[in-house]
Amino acid sequence: MHFCLDIGGTTTRGALFSTGGKILVRAGATGAALSLGAEHAAGIVREVWQQIKHTKGSEAPLESEIGIVAGIAGATIPGEAAKLTEILSEFASLRIVSDGYGALVSATNGAPGTLISVGTGLTGMRLFENGDSIAGSGWGFPIGDQGSGAWLGLCAMQDLTKYIDGIAPIQPVSADFVSQILAISGADRFDILHWQKNAKPKNYASLAPVVVKFAQGGDEYCLSLMQRAAREITELAQTLLPQNPTSHTDDPVTKPIWLSGGLSTPLLPYLKTGSAKINWRISRSEPLSGLYLLAAGKAPVENVIPRAVV
Amino acid sequence: MHFCLDIGGTTTRGALFSTGGKILVRAGATGAALSLGAEHAAGIVREVWQQIKHTKGSEAPLESEIGIVAGIAGATIPGEAAKLTEILSEFASLRIVSDGYGALVSATNGAPGTLISVGTGLTGMRLFENGDSIAGSGWGFPIGDQGSGAWLGLCAMQDLTKYIDGIAPIQPVSADFVSQILAISGADRFDILHWQKNAKPKNYASLAPVVVKFAQGGDEYCLSLMQRAAREITELAQTLLPQNPTSHTDDPVTKPIWLSGGLSTPLLPYLKTGSAKINWRISRSEPLSGLYLLAAGKAPVENVIPRAVV
Repeated sequence: MHFCLDIGGTTTRGALFSTGGKILVRAGATGAALSLGAEHAAGIVREVWQQIKHTKGSEAPLESEIGIVAGIAGATIPGEAAKLTEILSEFASLRIVSDGYGALVSATNGAPGTLISVGTGLTGMRLFENGDSIAGSGWGFPIGDQGSGAWLGLCAMQDLTKYIDGIAPIQPVSADFVSQILAISGADRFDILHWQKNAKPKNYASLAPVVVKFAQGGDEYCLSLMQRAAREITELAQTLLPQNPTSHTDDPVTKPIWLSGGLSTPLLPYLKTGSAKINWRISRSEPLSGLYLLAAGKAPVENVIPRAVV
Repeated sequence: MHFCLDIGGTTTRGALFSTGGKILVRAGATGAALSLGAEHAAGIVREVWQQIKHTKGSEAPLESEIGIVAGIAGATIPGEAAKLTEILSEFASLRIVSDGYGALVSATNGAPGTLISVGTGLTGMRLFENGDSIAGSGWGFPIGDQGSGAWLGLCAMQDLTKYIDGIAPIQPVSADFVSQILAISGADRFDILHWQKNAKPKNYASLAPVVVKFAQGGDEYCLSLMQRAAREITELAQTLLPQNPTSHTDDPVTKPIWLSGGLSTPLLPYLKTGSAKINWRISRSEPLSGLYLLAAGKAPVENVIPRAVV
């Protein structure tokens, strides 16, 4: 049996898999990104495990018989993954990968390929034939994550405050859109300053569904924001695409760019229109399935090649 | 005698003025924006006053003989200005204006006019003939302050992380510029994430001098960033310009847009090239002089007209 955990910033999903890959029990908890510390993450892993043990009752395996594979946000923070392994010594083994890698090998079923996850943040990952992988974007907000939900919310607030100042954005902005955004951020200068002071990426991302809704209704300004997001994601996709797109095996027309995350479906039409040469496809598999593939040796061990900085 | 204080987010400057407008004693302390609370601001005002009293010795006036005019960051935060007035009841009077207003009437010598302050943040203010004024920008980072030092730093980091990802910015980026920026932010993915997690507007603004230096050296990419900042500031200026620029008294060619703040001088050439129709001029007067004009009744009482939101 394999115990797999997909540990994000806000949610943790866990499952006990049979040796054949069947999910026997599911359990969940709040998020435990390693930026919150290894002790916190260990507590969450144990909490999820206790739920599974409770459900299995007398059939529950011993910790010493259980190998864990965890995809965890912040896996590359120096020292924390090693600390987590040390703390969770009651388990037979613990393998830690980045949260994006589980989603990637889940989408590709363990084969080489590319996934871009677009939710509150934005990350891209590509797995090569030789087992190496590279990551793109994922720099965090507000420097990075261009094209993500938090970024869409920031763009909307930047444009709306300019609109209030009397600086018109390129497209006309509807009063209805403005009032729905300001219902979230607060309506006057002081409210907006106060909102911003405490705003986390998820708060900015909470504006994105309003943008999505108005774009679907044909609002010109929101359409332009969705197109900008699609351009940002396409730029990232192009850096992850095969170096030699003319060779048969790496043909971008046949090799999809997998998309996951809450904004992937609303963004798909803009991505398709913006770059029809890329085979955009929504991944329907959950990261836990990818983590099982890793546990079962059906996907390569994660080996991210760092990008050269200059 | 008038006790005037220019209270910013990082620095407080105070001076005792003679009735005729001569500075008798100067004193200073750390900043005390009202977002930090009225109690904290009151403590700073008393600290500056004690320094002045100490310098004046036996000639020091009593608190009950002293009227204060303070320009303070966050003056519009509901309730805080009233609370500050209540706490500082040992003084004969306390008049509170926004920090930008002192700088504005200082630049115009109490006359109608427009000032844009561009440092870590960006604010604009215009004083009309009838004594009313309007404010623009000043929404705070990262939503607002486009064209400011913090914004320049954010733009540089956004572009550099894309550059590291293999997404080229429009202009070529020099390796020398990249290494000088990354010497501040940290050079690898984890360092940058960590830097960003703790970065305040002043940290982003600390990257701006590198952009300024390379632009002055002819670096194409940094030139484009300075031009973008100048465009943002010009857009703001246009919202503050007289409604009817053809009438003689409000002719933008004769009415200057005053500039203050650490980035005003480096940005001046780009503003002049970008919008030669605007009479850009650097203000050399300090905000304290404007606060004295207010204390002496030589500048109108501040009356900011709020902008309609929709």
